[in-house]
Amino acid sequence: MRNKAVYRYLGKVLMSFTIVMIFPIIVALLNKETIIPFLISGSVSFILGLLFYIIFNKNENLYAKEGFIIVSLSWIIISIISGLPYIISEHVSFASAFFEASSGLSTTGATIFADVEHLAKSILFWRSFTHFLGGMGVLTFVMFVVPLSKKDKSMHVLKAEMPGPEVAKLVPSIKKTLFYLYVIYCSLTLTEIILLTIFKMPLFDSILLSFGTAGTGGFALYNSSLATYTVGAKVVVTIFMLLFGVNFNIYFLILMKDIKSALKSEELRTYLAIYFVSVVLIVFNTYQYFTSFGEALLNGAFHISSFITSTGYSIGDVNMYPTNCRIVVLLLMLISACAGSTCGGFKMSRLIICVKKIKRDLTRLVHPNMVKDIKFEGKKLDESTIESTTSFLLLYVVLIILIMFIISFDPLKLTLSETISATFTTFANVGLTFDISNFALFSPLSKMVLSIGMLLGRLEIFPVIVLFTNINKS
Amino acid sequence: MRNKAVYRYLGKVLMSFTIVMIFPIIVALLNKETIIPFLISGSVSFILGLLFYIIFNKNENLYAKEGFIIVSLSWIIISIISGLPYIISEHVSFASAFFEASSGLSTTGATIFADVEHLAKSILFWRSFTHFLGGMGVLTFVMFVVPLSKKDKSMHVLKAEMPGPEVAKLVPSIKKTLFYLYVIYCSLTLTEIILLTIFKMPLFDSILLSFGTAGTGGFALYNSSLATYTVGAKVVVTIFMLLFGVNFNIYFLILMKDIKSALKSEELRTYLAIYFVSVVLIVFNTYQYFTSFGEALLNGAFHISSFITSTGYSIGDVNMYPTNCRIVVLLLMLISACAGSTCGGFKMSRLIICVKKIKRDLTRLVHPNMVKDIKFEGKKLDESTIESTTSFLLLYVVLIILIMFIISFDPLKLTLSETISATFTTFANVGLTFDISNFALFSPLSKMVLSIGMLLGRLEIFPVIVLFTNINKS
Repeated sequence: MRNKAVYRYLGKVLMSFTIVMIFPIIVALLNKETIIPFLISGSVSFILGLLFYIIFNKNENLYAKEGFIIVSLSWIIISIISGLPYIISEHVSFASAFFEASSGLSTTGATIFADVEHLAKSILFWRSFTHFLGGMGVLTFVMFVVPLSKKDKSMHVLKAEMPGPEVAKLVPSIKKTLFYLYVIYCSLTLTEIILLTIFKMPLFDSILLSFGTAGTGGFALYNSSLATYTVGAKVVVTIFMLLFGVNFNIYFLILMKDIKSALKSEELRTYLAIYFVSVVLIVFNTYQYFTSFGEALLNGAFHISSFITSTGYSIGDVNMYPTNCRIVVLLLMLISACAGSTCGGFKMSRLIICVKKIKRDLTRLVHPNMVKDIKFEGKKLDESTIESTTSFLLLYVVLIILIMFIISFDPLKLTLSETISATFTTFANVGLTFDISNFALFSPLSKMVLSIGMLLGRLEIFPVIVLFTNINKS
Repeated sequence: MRNKAVYRYLGKVLMSFTIVMIFPIIVALLNKETIIPFLISGSVSFILGLLFYIIFNKNENLYAKEGFIIVSLSWIIISIISGLPYIISEHVSFASAFFEASSGLSTTGATIFADVEHLAKSILFWRSFTHFLGGMGVLTFVMFVVPLSKKDKSMHVLKAEMPGPEVAKLVPSIKKTLFYLYVIYCSLTLTEIILLTIFKMPLFDSILLSFGTAGTGGFALYNSSLATYTVGAKVVVTIFMLLFGVNFNIYFLILMKDIKSALKSEELRTYLAIYFVSVVLIVFNTYQYFTSFGEALLNGAFHISSFITSTGYSIGDVNMYPTNCRIVVLLLMLISACAGSTCGGFKMSRLIICVKKIKRDLTRLVHPNMVKDIKFEGKKLDESTIESTTSFLLLYVVLIILIMFIISFDPLKLTLSETISATFTTFANVGLTFDISNFALFSPLSKMVLSIGMLLGRLEIFPVIVLFTNINKS
């Protein structure tokens, strides 16, 4: 690496990360549990950060490429540090701890704990809190690094990242943007906590599950996930999962009182349309398994909301889904909700661009002289955006196949369906899936590969690839 | 349809098709079987053709678009006519007959007969003969329609079809090209027949199986496919399947004594490299199921040859393949062998273009000012070729998902693996697959959808889409 400022910046990030350890320590103290795991993790983070900061004592300009490297490297190191409490408190292996921490920070929610009900409260809190942090981290990444990449023309491949209405034009500075973003994120979370307690959920559960909803994570407090809560609470979670799948730009627009533009959003409309069609399909194909239509509807609405937003909560068994429903769910997992949200996956906006590209190319085939521009959200898309979207798709497909291939060597001898299931749910940051309830028995290699997959999915592939290609070059 | 000449041309095709019925009639007479099924089919073809020819008595210029429509329409009507012998002789339903005929002509080789050993010899001959005709038809299509599309600039989407060395430059005219093509096709087939009889295969079996190899079809004479023949015969089939997976341009080059260029072909090298790596992987993962290493090697070499060339013969059970081998095989099915061969699938050349695109886009990300052209077979590819390849990929993926989704509603209640298995094997024109030995029990809807899938796969999607979009427009 030529630019030493990267490590200095990394040092700052690690030192700041120490602060978040205060929260699980408070929870541990309140519940008379040991604070040692979090003290050690916090210390490691601080000392490592300080070392980086002192050794690389040089300020240089940062460009988008360096931004990517900082994000990827921070994410990996923070995942390792966040895994320490699991090693110290629950005596799991390094691979398991790294998996659980990656799953938390990448807001996936796939777990290596076969039984979560016996975990210490502070550990339960820490798991869900990593979701909340991860969700925030992604928003920061999208708002902070992506605008950098727009100044730096070299980063044209990333333009597809945020084809929606541009945030930078709505508010004057990135700092102010981030402030608004966190206000929206936190107030939505707070509203959910309050509503959940109204519907008779214990406060501790409400806070943890709202963290998981906000980050579209999926870690729960019971082995049966959310099955035991009241109907009201389930409805609240259904709605809030959907809300966190919306592009945060929409909330900006609403804050700016431009509700008309917000409602016009193609991405929002497509997202909701796909959601409703999928719910109808699932309810139609599974109602015979339920005692009442209402129950079938709640189950369908909840699980589709959970799958499409890559959250991963459940309120019942999804293994009874017939193959047609499974195909729909697996597709929803891969596509996921809107860009500029805390969801994983390919994103609704990219899907729309791909569909429009197919339509244009077919039109060209029949009416060659009718060369049409592709419009998205009312604006003409330039060819480089379309091209980078197909590049992204190609890489997305290649990586999924690669991960599937590697984990198919697992001594567990997974079937093809299980391999698909495990790969999709981690790579798209969902967590919930068919035939696999936890990842405890997977080999260390599979756990590491799936963890890297979660990271790749979370950071939308390119930053991680920039990191690895740069390490080779310098 | 504005251009009436299309129907006139269709009339000619149908009248010519009558001639091919002579061959199964001879086989029926030699075996003292009824000739009625073939007489009726031949008559229907001739009368229908004559009607078209007389009614649409007008000659107009044909462009590539019309060429596509003629090919697609002919293929569908000929599939229906070719299915008549199955209806008349074996009393199967229309959907089953259409499936079997589509499977034959599209050189897929998936069958609706649970027991092929009780079929009349003339019917067995007819099944394999449709493979031979289908293989020839595809070559004609590639050589005849694609060059038309190069003159007609509107057809730029098809340029990706044949990115290899251009045939037109090697020999002066399309007619001569076709002549050479058929000479190569027939002499390779004849050589295989002779070699197979040398290795103690009955002449009738040799002819039929060579037809299947030439068209990369896969219909066999026994329920156990080729399991009962000698090792020598199996080796011959392995080699000839591989040979028919090579781009026919390579044989042109060899005929023109330009062996140096032939051996330089990137596509050929990639094809053989992927073949050998896959064989090693399969043998390594399945040798424990065999009594000797030689047997494991023969099995691996045979089946990978069968899968990669979309032939679909087998010499043993492939259901014992563990998941990692299944993933490799499913990928090989989708990718298939070289462009300009009789194979189905995405084609090696398109794969190479996609991989090069990913590499270029990633290089651009790290070294933005190093804009590199993509070269293939020593020539610079223009952007429109790359774009049309990604368009093709998008459509390919969308169609696979669509077919999977529709057949997942089949009352058979297929599992996800079976749905993938059935879709891939028909859409990529393979025929052999995991967990499904025949399609007898599939619903009529599934049979029709899979048949259309075979046609789409065989004609490389665009012509069929042009057909359907044109019907709507006029």
